[in-house]
Amino acid sequence: KEKSSQKSAEILSVQYGVNVFLVGLLLMLAVTLHKAGITEEHLLSYLITLMLVQLLWMLWQALRKYKHKDFIKEKDCHAGARWLRGGLTLFAFITLILDSFKLGYFIGYSGCLSAAKGIYSIVHAVFTVSQVYFLWFSAKDVIQSFQTIERFGVIHSVFTNLLLWAFGILSESKHQLNDHKKRLAALGNLTLDYHEPQCNCTTNACTVFASGFYYLYPFYVEYHIFASAMLFVLWKNIGRSLEHHRYRKIKFRSHGAMVGTIAGLIALAITIGVLVYITQVAHSKHKKDSAIILFYSYGVTILTLMSAAGIIGLLIYRVDERPIDNSKNPSRKLDSDLLLASASGSWLIAWGSFLAIICTDKYPPHAWINLPYSLLVILETYAQNLFIIESIHRKHRKTEDEYEVIQRVFSVTNSSSNLLATLHHKSLDEVIKNEKKELPYMTHECIPHVDDHEDNEVHNSTISLSSRRIKLSRKRRILKNIAVFLFLCNISLWILPAFGFHPQYDSGLEERVFDFETWIAVVNLAMPFAIFYRTHSAASLFEVYCII
Amino acid sequence: KEKSSQKSAEILSVQYGVNVFLVGLLLMLAVTLHKAGITEEHLLSYLITLMLVQLLWMLWQALRKYKHKDFIKEKDCHAGARWLRGGLTLFAFITLILDSFKLGYFIGYSGCLSAAKGIYSIVHAVFTVSQVYFLWFSAKDVIQSFQTIERFGVIHSVFTNLLLWAFGILSESKHQLNDHKKRLAALGNLTLDYHEPQCNCTTNACTVFASGFYYLYPFYVEYHIFASAMLFVLWKNIGRSLEHHRYRKIKFRSHGAMVGTIAGLIALAITIGVLVYITQVAHSKHKKDSAIILFYSYGVTILTLMSAAGIIGLLIYRVDERPIDNSKNPSRKLDSDLLLASASGSWLIAWGSFLAIICTDKYPPHAWINLPYSLLVILETYAQNLFIIESIHRKHRKTEDEYEVIQRVFSVTNSSSNLLATLHHKSLDEVIKNEKKELPYMTHECIPHVDDHEDNEVHNSTISLSSRRIKLSRKRRILKNIAVFLFLCNISLWILPAFGFHPQYDSGLEERVFDFETWIAVVNLAMPFAIFYRTHSAASLFEVYCII
Repeated sequence: KEKSSQKSAEILSVQYGVNVFLVGLLLMLAVTLHKAGITEEHLLSYLITLMLVQLLWMLWQALRKYKHKDFIKEKDCHAGARWLRGGLTLFAFITLILDSFKLGYFIGYSGCLSAAKGIYSIVHAVFTVSQVYFLWFSAKDVIQSFQTIERFGVIHSVFTNLLLWAFGILSESKHQLNDHKKRLAALGNLTLDYHEPQCNCTTNACTVFASGFYYLYPFYVEYHIFASAMLFVLWKNIGRSLEHHRYRKIKFRSHGAMVGTIAGLIALAITIGVLVYITQVAHSKHKKDSAIILFYSYGVTILTLMSAAGIIGLLIYRVDERPIDNSKNPSRKLDSDLLLASASGSWLIAWGSFLAIICTDKYPPHAWINLPYSLLVILETYAQNLFIIESIHRKHRKTEDEYEVIQRVFSVTNSSSNLLATLHHKSLDEVIKNEKKELPYMTHECIPHVDDHEDNEVHNSTISLSSRRIKLSRKRRILKNIAVFLFLCNISLWILPAFGFHPQYDSGLEERVFDFETWIAVVNLAMPFAIFYRTHSAASLFEVYCII
Repeated sequence: KEKSSQKSAEILSVQYGVNVFLVGLLLMLAVTLHKAGITEEHLLSYLITLMLVQLLWMLWQALRKYKHKDFIKEKDCHAGARWLRGGLTLFAFITLILDSFKLGYFIGYSGCLSAAKGIYSIVHAVFTVSQVYFLWFSAKDVIQSFQTIERFGVIHSVFTNLLLWAFGILSESKHQLNDHKKRLAALGNLTLDYHEPQCNCTTNACTVFASGFYYLYPFYVEYHIFASAMLFVLWKNIGRSLEHHRYRKIKFRSHGAMVGTIAGLIALAITIGVLVYITQVAHSKHKKDSAIILFYSYGVTILTLMSAAGIIGLLIYRVDERPIDNSKNPSRKLDSDLLLASASGSWLIAWGSFLAIICTDKYPPHAWINLPYSLLVILETYAQNLFIIESIHRKHRKTEDEYEVIQRVFSVTNSSSNLLATLHHKSLDEVIKNEKKELPYMTHECIPHVDDHEDNEVHNSTISLSSRRIKLSRKRRILKNIAVFLFLCNISLWILPAFGFHPQYDSGLEERVFDFETWIAVVNLAMPFAIFYRTHSAASLFEVYCII
């Protein structure tokens, strides 16, 4: 009976969630179009209601947890890793700053802004704090009681966060479009048509707040998409019966990836330099083209290195075959799906630029470098996805290898069986606990106990084993370097578009083949996914680095 | 080793497919916008290339099958059911008629149409025939050799069909938009701007062909989406190791669903009547509103009945709990996902109408009936999805059949204890596994070897079992009736929008809240999914009818 109602509860709840989401999207669409009927207050009231419902549900959860300390019996160790929750908290913190900025802005313009905006900021701040608290302590839960109502609660939260994410993207692209129009107006190409509030700011800080939005929105957007991904895993885990297999706690160790870290940090530093230069020259007509060429050259360089790194990683995997871990793991499945789905955003823009370059009749000065850039974006994303997905699906690490090694030593030194039995107990534990340098230690312990006539043989085998061990660990070190390098490069590639540098807007190339309005719509639709792709693959690469 | 490269091959191929698809979408977008650079020939050449590649791959497949008769060792019995392949063949046949019409149209206008159009029609006809042949004989295959290259071949076919589907939708909505504009022009609201070829038709049949397109495109669109769904299941099955569990062949039995069939046929007849009436009055200004009101009244009636049927079905499932079949089944998973995804199209349009009605300031005459219509669309889809998904996930029938067997044996052998004992071991064990409610009941009555004085008691129990049996089968009969009724109603609801009656275009309601252009874009985007939802749920309901 349990199983039967489980399936229906799943479909019931997911249908509810999709409907909530669609209504929200339509409200946003209507608000963007500024037509009669639906105003921004309607949209804000809808979002506030959704957040309040989720707050009530989280309160109910917290009360239940408080009353019955042990009502969650199982935890999914793969869900809500510590660094993920840490990242979420960081994003949430910056989101709170954004909320306070919005509140300050509202107070400044309170004469002519609707009260809904103020209430929205306050509710959103409370919501953010509660949700981080909730996710921090409940992200790993496998809920087994009140399943139907819990499913509704969690899916409601998933889609509320998705809507807030979409709302963030909408506000951000409005800001960016305005900014872009301002730039065009400064260049003399367009007359400005910017909607400022109709009254004067009563405090002095309004412009500061307004320009602050610009730098804070990217974090707000990331916060909501991460939260909804974590909640989705929680939803997938409801009523699940876990297969209990050995779970190895993932630990972060910084050693052994020096080259990759340094290369990545150099890339990051260059990125910040490029960002500073571009924001400096953005409003100058003459230097605009040079800024775009600088951006593409920078992109081509970094993407070439990243593609090379990704392909080397894949080649290493090809020579070093390992079994695939096919156990059920909603968190990992979501990771792969999100990588593929969000990469499509990058691909759409890149293919758009590519087609525009090969089909247009008039080339802007930077077309020659836009072409390799677009192709490299596709290649890099392709290789990186393969690398990440193959990494997180492999059975990594030592236990099997070391097992093998020990067994071979055993087979050689089978004369002293007693001693070996104790050795077996000792070093196997060591192997399972430690992971790296137990082999020299082990052989050290091993050799003195063998008989004289076997000494030579054992010594030989030890040598070959050690060289094998070193080879393995060299491969691992290369993979670790690749992971950390790709991690830092992805953060670099996140920075420029997240802070509003989209040469696809002003390059003047794509709008010749696609209509200007249409191309802007395509970029506005695909760019959030392309940006999310970078943070998400950075998070995944961090995991890859830890498990290799 | 096999497993590891399998995962990468999967990701490799799916990324390839997505890129192929995105390039095609961008080409279509550019062609629709009529800007410089990309012309329709580019798009057609791209599609022709994709089809030729798929033809080559299918040829290679056919050759391999011809050479090694037994190279497919396993078949997935759930994939490519016979009625699905039958439906595919029917759609393909009508698609061939469309191709020949297109070829005829091309020959007529050959002076001013590019050769690509003619080549496209021919290649598409060859492609359709080969693909139906291929799917007819290979849809159930579980491919185990040359996995990587096979994955590429199949995913290439999936996305080629998806692109052809999108191309069909594009052509169809161009036709419909033109038709709509013609109607508006006839009503005096719009000046006509329709792109006819620039030369005269050399044959007499051109207008016949052109008006034939209108009725044939819906089938073309359905053909490609069905083909790509079947190919996707084939792709999912590559390299899969099947869990061998008992598979019951699904048989179609027509008896026992008289009421549902008659009610459904009445609905179908009324639909055709409505269609005829609407096409008659479509170009008359005065009767337009009455046609819209007729459509909505018809919709409200049929949707109310369907919702009621769906909810009754769900209630029966609530009182008649059965275990869920959780075995892995890519075909079934795809069915559920497609139902949910395509239902979103209906929901988007329905919520759009709903929001427009409650927010607008000026009501057209049919707003009062549009409101319940929109809500009923949402409710009906919601309930129907639940009903279908719960039906296909249940363990049906078997248990009841076994029941039947036992009872017959009971009624015959209610005194011979020996036979009962063996019977007990044989079939009761299975019953115990599968069912639970009657378990205590049965063992209680059966285990005591029937003495004479207990004869009476056993007889009683047999009687109660038989009456229970009749009750169960009454439930089954109700479910069968519901399934067949919903099946025919879904076909009815497919007919009107598939043949181009979209009151959402001309109702004049939604365009007040959403912009006219935007609303048309939303409808054009969501309508294909809403239409596909009807055929897909009809196919699923047919399966439900057979397995109940």
